[in-house]
Amino acid sequence: MKQIILAADIGGTTCKLGIFDQALERIEKWSIDTDVTDPTGVKLLKDIYEAFKSKLNTLNYTVEDVIGVGIGVPGPVDFETGVVHGAVNLYWNNKVNVRDIFKQFIDCPIYVDNDANVAALGEKHKGAGQGADDVVAITLGTGLGGGVISNGEIVHGHNGAGAELGHILVDIDQRFQCNCGKSGCIETVASATGVVNLVHFYYPKLTFRSSILHLIKNNQVTAKAVFDAAKEGDPFCIFITERVANYIAYLCSLVSVTSNPKYIVLGGGMSTAGLILIENIKTAYRHYTFKPAQEGTEIVQAELGNDAGITGAAGLIYTYIIEKEGVK
Amino acid sequence: MKQIILAADIGGTTCKLGIFDQALERIEKWSIDTDVTDPTGVKLLKDIYEAFKSKLNTLNYTVEDVIGVGIGVPGPVDFETGVVHGAVNLYWNNKVNVRDIFKQFIDCPIYVDNDANVAALGEKHKGAGQGADDVVAITLGTGLGGGVISNGEIVHGHNGAGAELGHILVDIDQRFQCNCGKSGCIETVASATGVVNLVHFYYPKLTFRSSILHLIKNNQVTAKAVFDAAKEGDPFCIFITERVANYIAYLCSLVSVTSNPKYIVLGGGMSTAGLILIENIKTAYRHYTFKPAQEGTEIVQAELGNDAGITGAAGLIYTYIIEKEGVK
Repeated sequence: MKQIILAADIGGTTCKLGIFDQALERIEKWSIDTDVTDPTGVKLLKDIYEAFKSKLNTLNYTVEDVIGVGIGVPGPVDFETGVVHGAVNLYWNNKVNVRDIFKQFIDCPIYVDNDANVAALGEKHKGAGQGADDVVAITLGTGLGGGVISNGEIVHGHNGAGAELGHILVDIDQRFQCNCGKSGCIETVASATGVVNLVHFYYPKLTFRSSILHLIKNNQVTAKAVFDAAKEGDPFCIFITERVANYIAYLCSLVSVTSNPKYIVLGGGMSTAGLILIENIKTAYRHYTFKPAQEGTEIVQAELGNDAGITGAAGLIYTYIIEKEGVK
Repeated sequence: MKQIILAADIGGTTCKLGIFDQALERIEKWSIDTDVTDPTGVKLLKDIYEAFKSKLNTLNYTVEDVIGVGIGVPGPVDFETGVVHGAVNLYWNNKVNVRDIFKQFIDCPIYVDNDANVAALGEKHKGAGQGADDVVAITLGTGLGGGVISNGEIVHGHNGAGAELGHILVDIDQRFQCNCGKSGCIETVASATGVVNLVHFYYPKLTFRSSILHLIKNNQVTAKAVFDAAKEGDPFCIFITERVANYIAYLCSLVSVTSNPKYIVLGGGMSTAGLILIENIKTAYRHYTFKPAQEGTEIVQAELGNDAGITGAAGLIYTYIIEKEGVK
């Protein structure tokens, strides 16, 4: 009987790999370096396959035991076909059909999705969103990413742009340009980059003193420095933190009124800033959000950290094969 | 073999009823008056059952031929249980378990959902959203309602507040109070009520002349009068129309970035205002929306009008019974 799931979370520097059982319990995890020398993706995917094969040997499994392979990729993915449309961090400049390439190595169901979606699926199955069929995950890192799970399934939308939460227009004055070409996206004011943007925007306009003045002057501000100073009572950094929290709360309010999730899971580096950020988010969220749409909804911190990707990649096989069809 | 679907769209004044075949083609439609004298709902639901039974007789069907019954209700519904939590327009002040009550009359699968969700499902199956698995319907009437379909299924959310699009906070200045108790909801600025709100807010502040001045002074402004005057070149009414269109475009932008629908279907009385509204919406939508999330998405006018409700109510049986399990 087939019994294991192979999972890969491809990043720009390392690929996290995992082997899971059919109840989505992790049997093994490890990682390999990401080879970005081949823009067709074949070399990297072959590396991943070889790593799986050798690990299967060690664990006394064979490829016959594999139910399916789930793969998370940092770029836009067509979920139906498994085609990645330009993964900048991997130097895949053209389309790469990850499913077709991987099928040449191992003939079993192969599901490919983008990293934000698989991280959301990971948190839904084994992390802070456990037990719920409606979960939204928001990743607060250098940028702002998202994954929406409704009725137990990932919302991809008609062309895969579902849950592109970083590009919701929230800054009415459109003060900062976004990488997407537009201005005013929430990513420009509520990510690590956004924190820095707001610091440089507000500092010259306000008379607050700040303990991070030396960082501001030397262009060395980081989100972490801002939150740390806020925790110590720095009034300017508290002001910035509240603004950032308000934007994130507004996003939580929007997803509540559209998708009404049980859990809004905050992940990424910024989500570990602690109570000063999360409590401000919760307060503003309650203020902004339609009452019936906030009832019973919890804003929680992600639990899986760096393992969200492989857990969610395995979760693709669990959700779309095991739960739907059972194991043969 | 079971072969027909019974569908009811319960409104405050009339109940629209329909009989559909298993391909969701309509066999018959008619309506009965809504009896609001019984706050338990039993009398009204019995009326509906009796109307179905008598029509089945006429058409030479029996209750044995019924695959299922779909019912749309104007109020919040728990989709899992079929319980309606207070339908104000029907004077159902307490919970009414529509499914359990109807099961006493006819023993077959019974699905109950709110009217905005079933209208969206109707447009997805037989109207302007045909052929797509990702559709958002926005109803622009006295209020602003919504229905979101992702992966072919209605997004209810964890407690049924999914797609409560009317209560997205968009008016930063929170100028107008909403029926929900908060201020600033999009319903207060982008519905028929919202048009009137904006007219009374802006008129004293602007030096525009307007052909609808007599209506403003007599408190008789309607959305229709504003759009009609705008079409004839009235500058104040054009100003108001553009503002309303901007809010609706912003909402379309938000649902594109969260759900990425193929079709955004605009229905309700205001959606028939014509090109002056819809073209302004499309222009602002293109400006506001993340490029990948607007690619291939079409903003279209609803096609089913008053039949959206019964079509979508029948669509509940089609979606959740026939498509999933087949007909036995």
